[in-house]
Amino acid sequence: MGKYLPENIVTSETLEKAHGIKEGWSEKYSGVQERRFVTHEHNGYMGVQALKMALQKSNTRIEELDMLISASATYDYIIPNQSSIILNELAGDSDITIPCTDINTTCLGFISSLDYASKLLDGKRFKKIAIVNSELASKGLDPSCWETFTLLGDGAAASILEFDENGSSGVIHADMKTYPSGTYLTIIKGGGMKNFFKDHLYDPAFFSFTMEGRKVLKLARKTLPPFIDAFFRDLGMDIHDVDHIIPHQASKVGLAMFRKMFSLNGDQVFSNLATHGNCISASVPMCLFDAIESGDLKRGQICLLIGTSAGFSIGSVLFKY
Amino acid sequence: MGKYLPENIVTSETLEKAHGIKEGWSEKYSGVQERRFVTHEHNGYMGVQALKMALQKSNTRIEELDMLISASATYDYIIPNQSSIILNELAGDSDITIPCTDINTTCLGFISSLDYASKLLDGKRFKKIAIVNSELASKGLDPSCWETFTLLGDGAAASILEFDENGSSGVIHADMKTYPSGTYLTIIKGGGMKNFFKDHLYDPAFFSFTMEGRKVLKLARKTLPPFIDAFFRDLGMDIHDVDHIIPHQASKVGLAMFRKMFSLNGDQVFSNLATHGNCISASVPMCLFDAIESGDLKRGQICLLIGTSAGFSIGSVLFKY
Repeated sequence: MGKYLPENIVTSETLEKAHGIKEGWSEKYSGVQERRFVTHEHNGYMGVQALKMALQKSNTRIEELDMLISASATYDYIIPNQSSIILNELAGDSDITIPCTDINTTCLGFISSLDYASKLLDGKRFKKIAIVNSELASKGLDPSCWETFTLLGDGAAASILEFDENGSSGVIHADMKTYPSGTYLTIIKGGGMKNFFKDHLYDPAFFSFTMEGRKVLKLARKTLPPFIDAFFRDLGMDIHDVDHIIPHQASKVGLAMFRKMFSLNGDQVFSNLATHGNCISASVPMCLFDAIESGDLKRGQICLLIGTSAGFSIGSVLFKY
Repeated sequence: MGKYLPENIVTSETLEKAHGIKEGWSEKYSGVQERRFVTHEHNGYMGVQALKMALQKSNTRIEELDMLISASATYDYIIPNQSSIILNELAGDSDITIPCTDINTTCLGFISSLDYASKLLDGKRFKKIAIVNSELASKGLDPSCWETFTLLGDGAAASILEFDENGSSGVIHADMKTYPSGTYLTIIKGGGMKNFFKDHLYDPAFFSFTMEGRKVLKLARKTLPPFIDAFFRDLGMDIHDVDHIIPHQASKVGLAMFRKMFSLNGDQVFSNLATHGNCISASVPMCLFDAIESGDLKRGQICLLIGTSAGFSIGSVLFKY
């Protein structure tokens, strides 16, 4: 795996002072002490830095990749897709022709892509697949909306999956459910075809990410327990038997609710919210990177990735590392 | 399958008169006599109409679907993803929880999704998968750019794939290649994070789809023959043995070049460009719908889907219907 964080560290103190936010609000309510906001970086740049590191760490040459997935909710251009931009920045002057596909399940981008890519890996057409999650949240935030402005951050992670002939590591189970009662609880109203920018002058509230935080939490509280019950039903184990749990870094309240709901202890549940913020689809793979680099997640251990996303969806992958 | 075309038929004569385009230019250069432009319709609406027809024609209940893929380049909102919007408009008042995923390979959306979905279908977790391609091109066109303005159209198609226990129909081979030398030949410059709408006042040239048509054609001319050679190399057949070929309706010149390049006759190669225009990812599945409905494509026959997309990519799926 690889990871890239923008150089510019923005502390909550700085953010609060610059935008008239009450002192200490960010840490208290969002749980974020500092996050990165891009300066010169953009989605493609961050993704390429993370992917270069992943290639290096796994001793993989670019041309060995059989597929490049970009699984982010933010992107450099509407057209072409982001994976093509990443390939261009990585190998634009070569004759490498890795198929480039974007997958978008917003915050669940890494979890969904890991699920699908693990099913594509067949040791023949697909031996190695790269997944890039590069998120630039900071441009789509409205400083007057403290809840989202103090919560989100920018960053990228990249992962290289390889078909394992020995079967000693791999996905054990995966599932995703989309609950249509929550479709519009998290939304960017402007910028798509429905409210095209031609017809709407820029307005930060209309063109920024908004969420009805309490309603999302209420829906998650209702849907997570039956989702997890069904997920583990036929596996002969339950959530407490998992060595490491990496949840999407949705919010301080969301993470606390999740731990309490399943009586999980702090050691079992990984979090980098305080130092990274919620980095959309990059949060889960950045945590996974940190868990591997720190030695917390060891080969042979069982890890559960779980998250919620706009839509409203829950997604989860259980795998043996 | 299902299909939806917006009610509003726009003839090339109307378009030319309204925008000061030389009479007959559209048919002569783009090959389009008429196309549909949305009035009240949007991406979600068109997609849902097509999906409802596909469900009805295949006697499928919504709750039988194990996955809903939206594989379009245009969308109602940046967040949430388009597949969640479609599920909401289809079943928002129910407790149906079909996993919703967006796949974006621009014009190759259907071809890529058919490829990946066919690999996901395992008769267990994935028995039935719906793919929706709903494209609203008309809002992202610049009337002063005749080449794209007279070429593109709006429309939607939906497809339901089912795991075939008997193996009498299915994907025979699929491949995709992305050529990074063509990344920026087709682009919408504004609207992503790189040129965020906050920093750029709306300008039709900057926020509309542009392509360097001649350079795209040149790259296609160079890359298509080796792509097709490699595609059929181990299959014991060549492109002339295929019963039906459905190419992406890229352009009149592109289609003519493709036919000439492989000495294909008109009957073998399906086209609806004159009456639909280029409808981005919806073109291929709308042609497939028409080929099935007209009885041209019969059960047991071999069909090749092939297209190019922004990126620049070539993708192809060979299947037995």
